[in-house]
Amino acid sequence: MSILTTIARIPLFEGLPPEQLEDLEMIMTDQVFRKGEIIFSEGDEADGFYVAITGRVKIYKLSPDGKEQILHFIGPGEPFGEVPVFTGQRFPAHAEAMEESRVLFFSKESFVDLVKRNPSLALNMLGVLSRRLRTFAALIDDLSLKEVPGRLAAYLLYLSTQKKGTEEVELSITKAQLASLLGTIPETLSRILGKMAAQGLIETDGRRIRILDPESLQELVDSGGRL
Amino acid sequence: MSILTTIARIPLFEGLPPEQLEDLEMIMTDQVFRKGEIIFSEGDEADGFYVAITGRVKIYKLSPDGKEQILHFIGPGEPFGEVPVFTGQRFPAHAEAMEESRVLFFSKESFVDLVKRNPSLALNMLGVLSRRLRTFAALIDDLSLKEVPGRLAAYLLYLSTQKKGTEEVELSITKAQLASLLGTIPETLSRILGKMAAQGLIETDGRRIRILDPESLQELVDSGGRL
Repeated sequence: MSILTTIARIPLFEGLPPEQLEDLEMIMTDQVFRKGEIIFSEGDEADGFYVAITGRVKIYKLSPDGKEQILHFIGPGEPFGEVPVFTGQRFPAHAEAMEESRVLFFSKESFVDLVKRNPSLALNMLGVLSRRLRTFAALIDDLSLKEVPGRLAAYLLYLSTQKKGTEEVELSITKAQLASLLGTIPETLSRILGKMAAQGLIETDGRRIRILDPESLQELVDSGGRL
Repeated sequence: MSILTTIARIPLFEGLPPEQLEDLEMIMTDQVFRKGEIIFSEGDEADGFYVAITGRVKIYKLSPDGKEQILHFIGPGEPFGEVPVFTGQRFPAHAEAMEESRVLFFSKESFVDLVKRNPSLALNMLGVLSRRLRTFAALIDDLSLKEVPGRLAAYLLYLSTQKKGTEEVELSITKAQLASLLGTIPETLSRILGKMAAQGLIETDGRRIRILDPESLQELVDSGGRL
């Protein structure tokens, strides 16, 4: 895949016009970190932000007695270090590659230059982030639907928008955690997944779920969630 | 409350330096809409975005046969119309005041001018939105905690960050919906709220909940959620 296609698929840059994607390509550098390599450390100057392309990065703090406290895991397509870069602070935590990881780096200096020359890049990115916030808010609303199938449908559609509307989504949490998030037990979740598959809405393969009929899933959400 | 203080409390502008808040004050206009008044209509040019200060605004679409489909309700502190303004599209839905509502309007032209003169405003706003996305993502994670008290604690802390860390939060959904979001029944939710109040973590008064001990609530989340 060309690097431009890769950038275009990053949710943070979703829907930016081609010339702005090319501008971003001009300023980014492509880096590979080996397993266990430190990408940045707490207190470092936030001189740029990162987007993971492959692999997995762990963001963590160390307590005074050296105990590791993991804040989050970063997977493909996800940015990290962007909050301190945008707000002009230092990195508030450490980042370490958990496996070999390919990462794009956007230096703050070049990014600020780009925004100065082309404010519409910043406006478009504000649009992207505002839209993602709306998606999240809608998910929180939908998770309070009365019926579990509707909650599941909302969650699957949410995962699919996070991955830029791809059909295939992969659960980043276990089925037990997902059942818990949906307010049900794993057995019920499995039964609902089976029913959705039987009705041709989805196809499942372990943690991978292919969305076959997003319209019907959306109807399930809108109608209150009874399958 | 001065208008500057009001602007500073808007989550979209949270943590902006005073001079940028003053810039925003210079370009905004203060508008009051009566109950039932239309603020904008679907298809209108998105010439600026709005932030509700008091009252309640409904965002909706009309189906071909005139049926109203409500997309969301906007309450104090929340922006609306910002996505199409940032991304250069027309308003995708209608906005109507459901009660007398005070609303700040930021014209697109003045806002773009401001960003051109001062790109760090856009960077700071990108920082604000990125941070809010992280809060949402953390909430989704926390809602998959095994124990219901931890989920409730995560939700209360999330509401409090949405309201810029105020102690008092007000549920925007009913207790039945909240119970559903937390994967429990209203009776259990009431019992947990009672227990939290008895332990001095919160104080409840109908839909208003005052957070007395945010540290202990956070510990409840971090420890897996058993009260």
